[in-house]
Amino acid sequence: MTTDTLERAAIDTIRFLSVDMVQQANSGHPGLPLGAAPIAYVLWTKFLKHHPENPRWIDRDRFVLSAGHGSALLYSLLHLTGYDLSLDDLRQFRQWASKTPGHPERGHTPGVETTTGPLGQGMANVVGMAMAEAQLAARYNRAGHTVVDHYTYAIVSDGDLMEGVASEAASLAGHLKLGKLICLYDDNRVTLAAGTDITFTEDRAARFKAYGWHVQALADGNDTAAVARAIRRARRRKDRPSLILARTHIGYGSPLQDTCKAHGSPLGAGNVAATKKRLGWPVEPPFLVPEDVLARFREAVAKGRRAESTWQRRWDGYAKAYPALASELRHAFDGTLPPGWDADVPVFPADAKGLATRVAAGKVLSAIAPKLPAISGGSADLDPSTHTAMAGLGVFSPGNEPDGRSVAGEIWSYAGRNLHFGVREHAMGAIANGMAAHGGFIPYTATFMVFSDYMRPPMRLAALMGLRVIHVFTHDSIAVGEDGPTHQPVEQLAGLRSVPGLNVIRPGDANETAVAWQVAIETADRPTAIILSRQNVPTLDRNVFASAGGLRRGAYVLLDAPGGAPELILIGTGAETDLVVQAVQKLQAEGIRARAVSMPCWELFAAQDHAYRESVLPPGVRRRLAIEAGVRQGWERWVGDEGAGIGVDRYGASAPGETVLARYGFTVDNVVARAKALLA
Amino acid sequence: MTTDTLERAAIDTIRFLSVDMVQQANSGHPGLPLGAAPIAYVLWTKFLKHHPENPRWIDRDRFVLSAGHGSALLYSLLHLTGYDLSLDDLRQFRQWASKTPGHPERGHTPGVETTTGPLGQGMANVVGMAMAEAQLAARYNRAGHTVVDHYTYAIVSDGDLMEGVASEAASLAGHLKLGKLICLYDDNRVTLAAGTDITFTEDRAARFKAYGWHVQALADGNDTAAVARAIRRARRRKDRPSLILARTHIGYGSPLQDTCKAHGSPLGAGNVAATKKRLGWPVEPPFLVPEDVLARFREAVAKGRRAESTWQRRWDGYAKAYPALASELRHAFDGTLPPGWDADVPVFPADAKGLATRVAAGKVLSAIAPKLPAISGGSADLDPSTHTAMAGLGVFSPGNEPDGRSVAGEIWSYAGRNLHFGVREHAMGAIANGMAAHGGFIPYTATFMVFSDYMRPPMRLAALMGLRVIHVFTHDSIAVGEDGPTHQPVEQLAGLRSVPGLNVIRPGDANETAVAWQVAIETADRPTAIILSRQNVPTLDRNVFASAGGLRRGAYVLLDAPGGAPELILIGTGAETDLVVQAVQKLQAEGIRARAVSMPCWELFAAQDHAYRESVLPPGVRRRLAIEAGVRQGWERWVGDEGAGIGVDRYGASAPGETVLARYGFTVDNVVARAKALLA
Repeated sequence: MTTDTLERAAIDTIRFLSVDMVQQANSGHPGLPLGAAPIAYVLWTKFLKHHPENPRWIDRDRFVLSAGHGSALLYSLLHLTGYDLSLDDLRQFRQWASKTPGHPERGHTPGVETTTGPLGQGMANVVGMAMAEAQLAARYNRAGHTVVDHYTYAIVSDGDLMEGVASEAASLAGHLKLGKLICLYDDNRVTLAAGTDITFTEDRAARFKAYGWHVQALADGNDTAAVARAIRRARRRKDRPSLILARTHIGYGSPLQDTCKAHGSPLGAGNVAATKKRLGWPVEPPFLVPEDVLARFREAVAKGRRAESTWQRRWDGYAKAYPALASELRHAFDGTLPPGWDADVPVFPADAKGLATRVAAGKVLSAIAPKLPAISGGSADLDPSTHTAMAGLGVFSPGNEPDGRSVAGEIWSYAGRNLHFGVREHAMGAIANGMAAHGGFIPYTATFMVFSDYMRPPMRLAALMGLRVIHVFTHDSIAVGEDGPTHQPVEQLAGLRSVPGLNVIRPGDANETAVAWQVAIETADRPTAIILSRQNVPTLDRNVFASAGGLRRGAYVLLDAPGGAPELILIGTGAETDLVVQAVQKLQAEGIRARAVSMPCWELFAAQDHAYRESVLPPGVRRRLAIEAGVRQGWERWVGDEGAGIGVDRYGASAPGETVLARYGFTVDNVVARAKALLA
Repeated sequence: MTTDTLERAAIDTIRFLSVDMVQQANSGHPGLPLGAAPIAYVLWTKFLKHHPENPRWIDRDRFVLSAGHGSALLYSLLHLTGYDLSLDDLRQFRQWASKTPGHPERGHTPGVETTTGPLGQGMANVVGMAMAEAQLAARYNRAGHTVVDHYTYAIVSDGDLMEGVASEAASLAGHLKLGKLICLYDDNRVTLAAGTDITFTEDRAARFKAYGWHVQALADGNDTAAVARAIRRARRRKDRPSLILARTHIGYGSPLQDTCKAHGSPLGAGNVAATKKRLGWPVEPPFLVPEDVLARFREAVAKGRRAESTWQRRWDGYAKAYPALASELRHAFDGTLPPGWDADVPVFPADAKGLATRVAAGKVLSAIAPKLPAISGGSADLDPSTHTAMAGLGVFSPGNEPDGRSVAGEIWSYAGRNLHFGVREHAMGAIANGMAAHGGFIPYTATFMVFSDYMRPPMRLAALMGLRVIHVFTHDSIAVGEDGPTHQPVEQLAGLRSVPGLNVIRPGDANETAVAWQVAIETADRPTAIILSRQNVPTLDRNVFASAGGLRRGAYVLLDAPGGAPELILIGTGAETDLVVQAVQKLQAEGIRARAVSMPCWELFAAQDHAYRESVLPPGVRRRLAIEAGVRQGWERWVGDEGAGIGVDRYGASAPGETVLARYGFTVDNVVARAKALLA
């Protein structure tokens, strides 16, 4: 074959592998692969730096198919370029336990960088990946020793660009001048339900220019030379992220081309045959991969081997010249914690006045961050309230230092570890996922608890992927006070606890907060939400009460009944732990054998063995009262049929926090009264 | 005073009432009112069509302070222009049970159109309000009889424009050419934590132009003449929504001007005094309203009276000429249902094969919509899957009819009742809130259940406001199948049930689905989520099983144990109801006295009296098994200590739906086995 013929055959191989996969599964999305195969082909064969035999090589280019419904395209590319994904795997598309699920899943299929499908997420993930690359490059590369230097690519769709999360992320990417981020926009003008003409007629190029992006528009996405030129130009443009609008045609070549019918359903056998005929492809057999096409794609393996070994030599030189930095970076990518990372975690002395757990958490973070270089994060415009700025660690920025009114004394550069997300909670969550998926980071985010609602989709994806992302949520109850019900979380704790694979920790005082941060960092296989109070809570005297280390087991006996045979158990979380302690002390003073249990994390407690759980909540003690300033949903599990809860099953109110708490029954007297009523 | 002096005094009155409120409460946001008072003054005194004595006049202009943290500004305006909000109310700012909560709350304070505070929501609400106005005007106005004709205004902030939900809504507003929507952007370049220079340097004017908006930028937001000219131009531009960027100064006049310190904390007594001095305002007394200033503002009352009575005359003429239309519109605004609205609700015959509840719901909606003119809604690009298009009722559109490939036979105009939101779930929710808050509508939204995560913030606000918004969520479990875990909801049911004031109904078959829609429509004081299956479920034979009307009570006995004294209760919701029915029949055949309970709505059941609840779940019957394809969180409440649940406490998997269900234990055999184990 001539080069051109081979190229055409290679592109059609991608197309028809994808189409055959969908047809075989009788489920899936053939339209995107048919249309986007040429741009994917150009990117993967002419530009993408990767090593199919080592999908975890740290300096690979990152590629994300943000339009995850086009998964068949990605699986075709992975198979063809030599990843551990066989033709048989492709034949098992969308089947039980296959390596080719309906949407790409990180951790499930080699070469899949992040789980996509929910639109907009992948586009925001790549912003996080490009931020990760820029920060690591600035922090670790040294003159003559470039060990971090890769691009981040994405294929994005109309649906991605319509989603708000993508807008937020794109605006931030433009602000940050992420020049090594290149998004190929599969501009096919058709969505699942219709043409974009019925909802999406904005000038997308102008919008991205307004964000500060470098924008190119290609009239013909099938023109591979033009696609290659555009990618080359995008790569040269180092001070702006790039969007390449490639005009493609959904369901290209099929009788359903340019219609939404090609989007999300198999073409049907007849249309598959017609498409193959129209594009000059053998109708049979399915899953056809011509040998010379395979050879062409598989060049990626040798090329990848060379690229990684070239890099490896650079790495070896670097490790010799800068052993400490190299070790740091290795730890960061391995996800291991350097020795002594927690040496400076403060122990807070007993203090009746105490401090807000958000403040305690800030102190803990500040103590850990200097010793744990992987930590990087920030808030959605709420640092002064969330206490999540890390002093002295710089602000991640393209160098456009502000006038210093707001944040003094920090160095503003890509080497900065403090991130400013702006008022963009949703992108913050998705960017954190991108950083974690990139590797080299334990990212954290921060906002008010009530605004966790804005970022549920990426939180779910982090849990599904098992990414170590830490979410700090402060202002965690009606105790927020004057800001009123719009700012007072009520149902958010229950909502977060419902997410499988997410640890939700609501520490009860400063020392529990310290342990919470430690557990979050040590838990490498899942995300953690740390839920913190706005208001002060007493720091318990751990000579009187059990050690805060009990948090590691999710729940523990804080103060037992005299003699240890309780007739009543009071259970609290977060700031309400103090109410439990006070009430139990009062009850004990009256001769009632009450036990105080602190239960900062349901998930950790549920994971303990039976014996431990029964030691904290003995089955024989049925009178149990839970006190938590949130909806009671789910507490039945812990208090049982004869137990009760003091909760908030309605919205909050605007008034000073103490007033709201009192009006809603969060007083020692009410807790004592309710406890006694349980015994009666 | 001269006009100019009076104007200046009027503006300063707004400023210092607001500042004094914040200072008195020792809590709040003084910065926005100080900066935005001039633009608010111009809008409210020179343009806003409203009637302070009748805040519910249907043809008033709508005004929304999207930057709800500036509530003091809005309360000052409401008091000054003569709403039922006294100076004493202002003095009670942010206090328990006051009419002046921390953020504006609809239903709580006269003149507050929508609850704001969570950023971006108000900006999307006004898009919904402008859509509502455009649709009602097109449907109800007649030549010579204009009864719907008002503008929708908003004051929006940096934070609003950074939020993705605002981007989504703005893009749609531009597409829809909503010419009577005018947003005044309080362009003060400072957010809570910093200057916008650290995160938000996009070209905002260019971005909105790209969306298709008419954009004007004012160099000086204190130049009231320029503000007035800009608003006049915006009003004249009928084919595009307008954004007016008014360069303002946060904390104007105060020592903290142009810093984030002026954003969210009281200025402090010293700074209040300094600010008053600098602007030439008496330091004492606080809450000063000069008489001539008050008189100037209170002109709004007489003006409003005149405006409404002029409109009332038009309305009377209209009601005479078009009595049916007038009656329809009255019903729509009163929120009452016209007689016979439910006359055509289908009754589905028993059918073992059955149909998906999403399909049944589509038939129900199609039967109701023609008789209930207030219904308007649509999906986030998923009509073909959610079955929520209403045939023959037109598509809401500025008239730019597409080429008809996607939706044939519908009239495309502002009179259309089908809405196309694009892939913008978050804005969809907030727009629906705006339409409901505008009045005249029972809006509905639709998307896949898993993407309810994208729209939790507006769902919460609808519940907080008590707005009748109906959310249709289809593809409601792991039975989604091949699309895999990203598209299979697991925790969403629990998450939605946690929201106070939201009814969550998951009907078990076609006839329950019909009742679910009816209940949602009849429930005027809160939102409802209707949760529907992708897969077919049998239509139960209601001669054998109890009437689907039992759904109105949340849960009911579908099939009792022979003799009526059950030893075991199986409880199901949604598609799993069929499993319950089959298992109970099998158990009964084996001589086990099992009862089948259908429990489509926890909230409705919890609201029943004690006696009814005990008749369904008798306290003496402790062996209870709940079957629901979602996390089990919260089911303990209904099954108790001796009960159990078959649920999904982890993520789903990609495979055909039947396979996934079977692998996860959702088979009759497993249900029977688990039931027997409970008895053992």
